[in-house]
Amino acid sequence: MLLDRINEPGDIKHYSVEELELLAQEIRTFLIEKLSVTGGHLSSNLGIVELTIALHYLYNSPVDKFLFDVGHQSYVHKILTGRKDRFDTLKKYKGMSGFIKRNESVHDVWEAGHSSTSLSAAMGMALARDFKGESNKVIAIIGDGAMTGGMALEAMNHIGHEKKDLMVVLNDNEMSIAPNVGAIHNYLSRIRSDKNYKKAKGELESLLKKIPSIGGTLAKTAEKVKDSLKYMVVSGVLFEELGFNYIGPVDGHNLPLLLETFKQADKVKGPVLVHVITRKGKGYLPAEEDSHTWHGASSYKIESGQMAKAVGNPMYTEIFGNALIELAEKDTRIIAVTPAMPGGSGLLKFAKAFPNRMIDVGIAEEHAATMCAAVAGEGLKPVFAVYSTFLQRAYDQTLHDICRMNLNVIFAIDRAGFVGGDGETHHGVYDIAFLRHIPNITIMMPKDENELRNMMYTAVHYDGGPIAIRYPRVNTRGVTIDETMTALPIGTWEVVADAPSPTAAILAIGPMVQLAEEAAETLKREGIHVRVINARFIKPLDETMLLQLAKEGLNLVTIEEASVKGGFGSSVLEFYADRNIYDMRVKNIGVPDYFVEHGSLNEQRAEVGLAAERIVTEVKNLLPKKRQRA
Amino acid sequence: MLLDRINEPGDIKHYSVEELELLAQEIRTFLIEKLSVTGGHLSSNLGIVELTIALHYLYNSPVDKFLFDVGHQSYVHKILTGRKDRFDTLKKYKGMSGFIKRNESVHDVWEAGHSSTSLSAAMGMALARDFKGESNKVIAIIGDGAMTGGMALEAMNHIGHEKKDLMVVLNDNEMSIAPNVGAIHNYLSRIRSDKNYKKAKGELESLLKKIPSIGGTLAKTAEKVKDSLKYMVVSGVLFEELGFNYIGPVDGHNLPLLLETFKQADKVKGPVLVHVITRKGKGYLPAEEDSHTWHGASSYKIESGQMAKAVGNPMYTEIFGNALIELAEKDTRIIAVTPAMPGGSGLLKFAKAFPNRMIDVGIAEEHAATMCAAVAGEGLKPVFAVYSTFLQRAYDQTLHDICRMNLNVIFAIDRAGFVGGDGETHHGVYDIAFLRHIPNITIMMPKDENELRNMMYTAVHYDGGPIAIRYPRVNTRGVTIDETMTALPIGTWEVVADAPSPTAAILAIGPMVQLAEEAAETLKREGIHVRVINARFIKPLDETMLLQLAKEGLNLVTIEEASVKGGFGSSVLEFYADRNIYDMRVKNIGVPDYFVEHGSLNEQRAEVGLAAERIVTEVKNLLPKKRQRA
Repeated sequence: MLLDRINEPGDIKHYSVEELELLAQEIRTFLIEKLSVTGGHLSSNLGIVELTIALHYLYNSPVDKFLFDVGHQSYVHKILTGRKDRFDTLKKYKGMSGFIKRNESVHDVWEAGHSSTSLSAAMGMALARDFKGESNKVIAIIGDGAMTGGMALEAMNHIGHEKKDLMVVLNDNEMSIAPNVGAIHNYLSRIRSDKNYKKAKGELESLLKKIPSIGGTLAKTAEKVKDSLKYMVVSGVLFEELGFNYIGPVDGHNLPLLLETFKQADKVKGPVLVHVITRKGKGYLPAEEDSHTWHGASSYKIESGQMAKAVGNPMYTEIFGNALIELAEKDTRIIAVTPAMPGGSGLLKFAKAFPNRMIDVGIAEEHAATMCAAVAGEGLKPVFAVYSTFLQRAYDQTLHDICRMNLNVIFAIDRAGFVGGDGETHHGVYDIAFLRHIPNITIMMPKDENELRNMMYTAVHYDGGPIAIRYPRVNTRGVTIDETMTALPIGTWEVVADAPSPTAAILAIGPMVQLAEEAAETLKREGIHVRVINARFIKPLDETMLLQLAKEGLNLVTIEEASVKGGFGSSVLEFYADRNIYDMRVKNIGVPDYFVEHGSLNEQRAEVGLAAERIVTEVKNLLPKKRQRA
Repeated sequence: MLLDRINEPGDIKHYSVEELELLAQEIRTFLIEKLSVTGGHLSSNLGIVELTIALHYLYNSPVDKFLFDVGHQSYVHKILTGRKDRFDTLKKYKGMSGFIKRNESVHDVWEAGHSSTSLSAAMGMALARDFKGESNKVIAIIGDGAMTGGMALEAMNHIGHEKKDLMVVLNDNEMSIAPNVGAIHNYLSRIRSDKNYKKAKGELESLLKKIPSIGGTLAKTAEKVKDSLKYMVVSGVLFEELGFNYIGPVDGHNLPLLLETFKQADKVKGPVLVHVITRKGKGYLPAEEDSHTWHGASSYKIESGQMAKAVGNPMYTEIFGNALIELAEKDTRIIAVTPAMPGGSGLLKFAKAFPNRMIDVGIAEEHAATMCAAVAGEGLKPVFAVYSTFLQRAYDQTLHDICRMNLNVIFAIDRAGFVGGDGETHHGVYDIAFLRHIPNITIMMPKDENELRNMMYTAVHYDGGPIAIRYPRVNTRGVTIDETMTALPIGTWEVVADAPSPTAAILAIGPMVQLAEEAAETLKREGIHVRVINARFIKPLDETMLLQLAKEGLNLVTIEEASVKGGFGSSVLEFYADRNIYDMRVKNIGVPDYFVEHGSLNEQRAEVGLAAERIVTEVKNLLPKKRQRA
């Protein structure tokens, strides 16, 4: 095996093209085998094997900088940079990350997780290089989906203007995660399909030579025809107009051609965009045929391509998708909006049921949010379905456009809380802290799937402004579903367990309610009685209940799977301070002030102390205080 | 006067073109006179007089929707929609807003303040219109500067794909606030300058007719030449490739031409972009000659164009700019980055001193932040100079790129606190709440200009990760400047006034320190002694001092010109809860949970109770408690 002998990029420099091609096959086999056990981003990595080999063969990482946009397509890079032995621990707790990680290797120079950052980073690195008088290459590898993110376009605009020497490799596989949308995508499709350009070029050039020069203006005109032909032939007029040199499109699975193309690109001064066509899942038929499903694969049987079935109750995502269909059947104002995540957000069935009421804007969270603002302003009910972590991209639009104008946008915030294997770039633990200080917004989180449905009903029937429902990336609890959905009174909490003369109350949100219930049981066995409250409205708080708790003189423990700084618990502290109630004992449990790495969701919770035992400890720590207020 | 007779858009419908032109002159005179007293966005409004008249003449607002990007160029629109009598109150407290305001007029359908939102909003309105089966026009008016904002490009990509009927009027004046940068700008310049296209078109077409048809392929090729010629002639290939129909460029001060052009644009199905060339300040020579200075004008003498001189001590912005030059002279790692605000951020002198170390990326906050991350990763010291309100656009990049990788980016956050006349879209009152929950970041705010300098020195010499300095849009205090700058120990506060056996301590940040000092004086006269603390590190807190305060049993009042929800005061509450210190009395004063409208900064502070008297009251409210902890 060639693969066995590779420990760093230098090891492939002396390979023949034939050996590199053989290596590509070995890497494919390696990935298909390893990921069949661990799961992972199979299809995007199978698509980029030759491309990654070509880059490491031609350039000198880490002196030359490779920036993988998003970074989940970096497995081949990891293999070539000495990490093939770590694939058994892929995405596991304390194991190898599924993304670029600077603490894993000197060859990992730019971390991401969110898309469309690599061009800005490449510009920064090129800037610093020139400033320091160095001469290394800077190469960003970005998918066609990520290219439509606003910040990538901002970066193109800047790079094309500054004319920095850097290379953008456009890894065009016609997909972000779902099939791509957008005019840039359409544009790329036209380039791909136009095979006659080259032929036309030669013929036209000879034709032009035959035209007699009739005079100044016409000669100039002919020159212009040539110029415009350049665009036509090169096909990259959009990129050329933005100041890039365009080379391509080139077959990304043809190694000799790739090597030749990059050598050509190297000769170009200024920014160059190499347009590489690849196929997601290349070399593994099940993944080639359904790259969407195989984007983030769970473990699978190699021969059949059968993926491990999800176990347990349906995920919250699925409940959301189904309930939205029910609601949309009765309320024609409902429109669903997704930034390139129709599958991940549970909207595929909705899209089938209401193709005209499902808007996929591509990777464009900012645009999505502000578009929703305008749709709501016109009296419709846009449901912006977005992962908590990606909503970070639309913070300003949420504040400046939606909340400031107090428009009836419904936020369906999925993946709220830890997310497991994708790790620190994907956790949804900041949305409470970045949303709750924005005026006019209402924020809810359900304790179970039945409540999720009622919250959706509540949101659709609420006309007081923006309203958000956040729900976690976990299986639902399997509770009974009410026959009809009902609206929850805004700003009301629910006592889910009580006892005579409790010492304390636990204010929990979402999946933490279950932990609180467990803690209450444990405490009960020890003779300590507590009340468990489902604090389902994160904003506004249930002020009546908070005042009642103060009146009863209960100690309070708050728990949330979200940043403890600026979080829900913090808002409880603020409430009492605001009301000049100073004799409370309140303890906040939440995600502490650091970035929690990849692992299983339970490992992540355990690491930071989101556990029933922790609640038990904190309730006891607050003792013996039990007062009666005047 | 024609102007006297105009109270709503219908009043101009029967005008002749000559009357419209006369009206344009009257409006110019009106604006120049009115703004000479109130100040305001003179130059952008003088540039858009004919354009606004043409739109209101041809279309039927509010059925047809006009979306003014940013909105500070809507004065002419305000005049034509019945608000000319309110110009004396422009930007004043309870007066007429300087932006679009939905509660001012039914003709105001889309509010903004931040740039680049109008295309997303237009898409949302077009979507809702089609969904409801209506047929109104949707027209976004956007400057060439705003067009480079990422979300505008995201919207272009989506609109061009969906082929919705809507019109984008590109108001191209070669400026955002500063002269524009970026490849799109260069592209527009090329269009503007290329006058030979039309001539070339005719000649080439006749030439092509003369070429004998030699066979299939060549004929097709000739067709393609024609196609590409279309691009060349029409000049809008970039927009055409993005799925738009392009019409232009057209002189935006030629009313007959404008009217003709819009009529032509009306016939187009699908999205159409009308490229209008205007001149900022048109019709008022001083503003034409220096549209940068005249972007946001203060009051001025009409004849001389002499603007009212700023009074009082220099602004913090100026101190920042000067200190950065001093630091950059000694430290070659320093690079300044601005998103299109070189003037507003006090960097014009820096740009002159270090032209190669000043990067203006255009309106592109996201790109700017992530680019800074990469620059810092390469060992340099990027200083991202940005208004607090615009940093909202880069929340995700700050979190995901800068703070997650713990890179040494320096944030110079200007306009922190209320901003006065620009009102609720521009206040810098959320940055503490949206930054302090992000791991790894350090946040400072100076009590005076000398401390600002020391904080800048501190930031430049700090290698522990991202560090932010926020400073207000006010005059400095006029304190003595130290001969040399010194570094502040991270996470340390400063006692600025004390007394024997104080009852309470006031924890204040930035300009609130002065209010706290005043309150302390008042209280002293009443026999109540308090300690005044300059809580210059918002994160990390001075935990030693907080523990000391608890030990002394002092009551605490915190005050900040920032959102009280999730703010600095909230972090003090969190600290004590975290340390299980439950017997404190802490009162938080800050900006309450609603959007504060335009007015003077002092009026805004007074409205929300950011005042010495309020501190006095709160200190007294906390009495009589004065305990001694065990």
